[in-house]
This record gives sequence, structure tokens and C-alpha cells, in this order.
Amino acid sequence: MASDDEILITLGAQNALYLLVSLLVGEKSRVATEEPGFPDIRNMFKLKTGNIALIPVDEHGLILGDALSRINLLFVTPSHQFPTTATMPLERRMDLLKLANKHDFIVIEDDYEFETNYVNEPCPALKSLDDGGHVIYVGSLSKTLFPGLRLGFLVGPTRLIAEARSLRRLMVRHAPNNNQRTAALFLSLGHHDTLIRRLHRAYRLRWEIMGAALAAHMPSSARIPTFGGTSFWVKGPEDLNSEELAKSAAKIGILIEPGRINFGCANAPRNYFRLAFSSIDERKIEPGIKLLAAMIAAPA
Amino acid sequence: MASDDEILITLGAQNALYLLVSLLVGEKSRVATEEPGFPDIRNMFKLKTGNIALIPVDEHGLILGDALSRINLLFVTPSHQFPTTATMPLERRMDLLKLANKHDFIVIEDDYEFETNYVNEPCPALKSLDDGGHVIYVGSLSKTLFPGLRLGFLVGPTRLIAEARSLRRLMVRHAPNNNQRTAALFLSLGHHDTLIRRLHRAYRLRWEIMGAALAAHMPSSARIPTFGGTSFWVKGPEDLNSEELAKSAAKIGILIEPGRINFGCANAPRNYFRLAFSSIDERKIEPGIKLLAAMIAAPA
Repeated sequence: MASDDEILITLGAQNALYLLVSLLVGEKSRVATEEPGFPDIRNMFKLKTGNIALIPVDEHGLILGDALSRINLLFVTPSHQFPTTATMPLERRMDLLKLANKHDFIVIEDDYEFETNYVNEPCPALKSLDDGGHVIYVGSLSKTLFPGLRLGFLVGPTRLIAEARSLRRLMVRHAPNNNQRTAALFLSLGHHDTLIRRLHRAYRLRWEIMGAALAAHMPSSARIPTFGGTSFWVKGPEDLNSEELAKSAAKIGILIEPGRINFGCANAPRNYFRLAFSSIDERKIEPGIKLLAAMIAAPA
Repeated sequence: MASDDEILITLGAQNALYLLVSLLVGEKSRVATEEPGFPDIRNMFKLKTGNIALIPVDEHGLILGDALSRINLLFVTPSHQFPTTATMPLERRMDLLKLANKHDFIVIEDDYEFETNYVNEPCPALKSLDDGGHVIYVGSLSKTLFPGLRLGFLVGPTRLIAEARSLRRLMVRHAPNNNQRTAALFLSLGHHDTLIRRLHRAYRLRWEIMGAALAAHMPSSARIPTFGGTSFWVKGPEDLNSEELAKSAAKIGILIEPGRINFGCANAPRNYFRLAFSSIDERKIEPGIKLLAAMIAAPA
């Protein structure tokens, strides 16, 4: 249980990350993030340092390799890795915390879509398992309440939160009071729990339909086995250009997100793409996947 | 008339200033601000450079001295200087722009409370007089719509706005959509103009009452003659400690703001204070000033 002075309300999770990078990363810092991963954290790091390690992910999220012995700070999305949606199992979480203790690096845990686990109970957050005080937790309310609300929060040690509060004051003062008040009422009256349960049912159904449609119509595409999230991360044929595919598909009303932006490496592959399903009517999912599969098989 | 790509919506004027300082001020920049002035801009400058000139103000706002020939960037509040509320006359505005052209420095104009001029028509903003393209304009809607709304904007050249938009994206993404939409409707339907007229009448009355009360009960205190704003800036007797006064006054329900925080110099005077009147019932103003005057005359 965090106390009041260990929590800060921010302008979405994005603002929490920006505050943390501003406070904790300097020119000589050695930082690490996931590959593929969240492009904005890479860009925030780039404003401050050139020493950015890109750490590969597998079906269990971030791979715990040697690079972690040489860093000061790690950004990680264990609940549903962005963009692959892979969930890090408990054992790897414990191993990651051991490494953070051993090599004394800070872990920024972005608990991305933690409430969307359709198969098992959600795994405990790194922060809740952290005995060594190395984890800073970042969460968001924008995803579940409504997009564009821009309410997030960070949880960390008292001294860090005090510094982050001062910097937030200079940067934006605070999140708009009307939204803070409305969200606080919504949470305290229990409506948010109800909303999460309703979203969970709707998302789970769409996840199952899209998973089945991908297996039926794109059997050759590779996917990481996942348990949740609000999107699928698809690896198309080697010669696929997903940026061209996105343009053609948009013309017939199918919106996909090319995956290249999520890679930080020099020769980012073009054959990955992301399929989000949180706001598609479930009846439209299977026909859309079928059309998309046909476009991949026979490019325009 | 600014075009769409010359405007950026920000999380209040504060966020506009933070974005501008982040983009335009480096370690070697020579910047200037008003003395006394807005403490937050001084603190933002301090995060980036040690070369900060503090330029004195008089009853016409910023004094145009030699220091302006040696700077890259100036922060100024010509409509109502913060905290003195002095308005810069047209002639000095024109002279300031000539200096900006001659010495090629950027002017950040925070058009603080421009709508609260009770005696004359508001003077044109520096930005509207600027032929040389040296002025960046910062405005706020939080003051008039409601405190805590956190909606501001900046107006500048297309290339600067594009950079500021990218940085805003990393920092906060955007101001909450519900508030942007609501404010846009409020403005476009004409309600904001009506609100400003109503506030103007209420503020003018309070300004007159407080001005008369100060003249009657604190005749020895010095004040800059002003034409507007939502506060008075009072210089008490030389030996006044306004921080102590603020504590004693708070005990009987009178809230004043000690002025020391607005000075950047090493030995900031303690005998200035700020009296805000925008949310005091007009019947309470004169009795409050009378009590305050008695406390200054005979400290507890």
C-alpha cells in the first residue's frame, strides 16, 4: 500500500515517464528499453543520453541478458509488453528484481493494460514484489476511463515523488482539477471496477474472435502466444511492407498500425504490424481479417 | 491573424513557457526576466542556464536598459506586469520591439490578464505590433474560465510551433480532450465574451473599492499607479516583515501573499506584499484592509 507522498498524479502515463526521464537520466546514464518497444520512451531517452541499450523480447517479455549488468535504468512493460502484448511470468519477474538488486539499476515499470488478462489472474506487479526499492511504477487511467482524459500516476520513494512534484509544477502545474475530481468520484463510488469488468468481457470476446480469425485466415503469420491486451502483434511474410499494406487497407476501411516505428535498431523490419481490437464491433473482426489476409497474399 | 500551424494548445500558460524554455534556452543562452517578476520563469531558466539578467520594472513595466543589448531571450508581461500589475504604454512597447530587432533577441510575451483593463482600452499586444518576427505570444484561458482548467496557448512561427508540438507530445501528449472541446464550444458560442464582460464589471468594482481602501487606511504605503489586473502590489514600511504579517493575518481570515518570492536578487526585500481581489466579496474588502493596516501599524 503506497502512502500519499509516494504517489503523484500526472498528465497520463506519458507525462509520468517524461518526468522520470527528466529527473533520472543524464548525459552519462546508461539506459535500456525493450526491442521492439514503446517508441516514445526511446525518444525521451534520446533527448538526454546516447547510451541506450535495446533489449530483445520473447514470448515472456524482456529477455534477461548480459546487457542488464551494465545499465543504470531500465524501462519495461511486464503486464503486456508493448507492442507484442507478451506477459512476463512470475519467475522472470523475480529474476529481473534479483538483477536490479545485484547491479543496482532502477526499473521503471509501465503497468500497461494490467487489467486485460483473459486467461489467468493478473501476475503481481514488479513493484509489489520489490523488496530492494528499485522499482518505480507508472499507471494510467486514460485507457479504461476514456482516451484523451490524460490521467496517469506514478508510485515511488517519497524523495523522488517530491522532486517529481516540483518538476510537474514547473511543467504543467497539475492535471485539470475537474477531471481529477470526476475520476476520483468515479473510482471511489466503485464505477471504475464495474467498467473494468464490462470492458474485460467485451475485450475478451474480441480477442478470441480475432485470434481465431488470424489462425484461420493467416496461418503462416507468426504470433507470440498471449493472454491479453487490446491488440495482436503480427509478423507477416518476410517480404511484406506493412506501411504499404496499411495505406491500401485504409482505403477499404481497415486500420492497421505498421510495426516499424516500434523498433529502435537501424534496419527495422517492415513485415510486422499491430491489430488493435478495443473499439471494433465483434461482427466486423473476422470479415476484416479475411480481407487483410487476401491483400497480404496478393498485394495491389 | 494567426493560422492553425502558428498556434499550439498547451496545459496552461505555464506549460507553454516550459516548452519554450526547453526548446530555446541552452547552457550558454543569456536570458532576462523582470525584477520583481514571475518566480516560475526564473526557476525554469535556472534549470537550463546560469546567465539570467534581472531587469528592474517601474510604473510602465520593464525598464529598457543596457542589459537588453547582451541577451538572446527576454520574458516580459506587458499587459499587466507580474506582480506589480503595471501596464507598458504603447511607446515603450515600440521601443522594446526596436531593441529586439537591433540586438536580435527573442521576446516571450506572457499576455497576463490582458482583458482586465478598467480605465483605457487594452494596449495592442507586442505580438500584434511585431514586424521583425521576434515575439512569441503566450496566453491563458485558465484565469477567466476557471482556475484549474489548465488550458493555455502559444503563438509563434510555424517551425517553432512544429517543434513545440513534438515536444508537447512527448511531455503530455495533449490537453485533455473533454476540456478542449468544452472550451472550444464555450468560445465559439460567444459565452466567453459575455463572461469576460461580467468579470470585468465585478473586478472593476473590487479594484476601485480596494484602491480607495488602501488610500484611506494605508496612506503611507507605496503603490504603482495601475489600470487593471486582479491584485494590488503594496510596498509596506521598510521594517515590515510581510511573511510574519501573512501568518498573523491568516489567523483572522485575511489572506495576503508575501512578495519576497517574486524577487530573484540575493537580498530580496521583505516589505512587499500582494493583495488579490478577484474572489472576495466587495463588502469584505474595506473592513479587511482596515484590519490589515492596523496589524501593520501595531505588529502582534
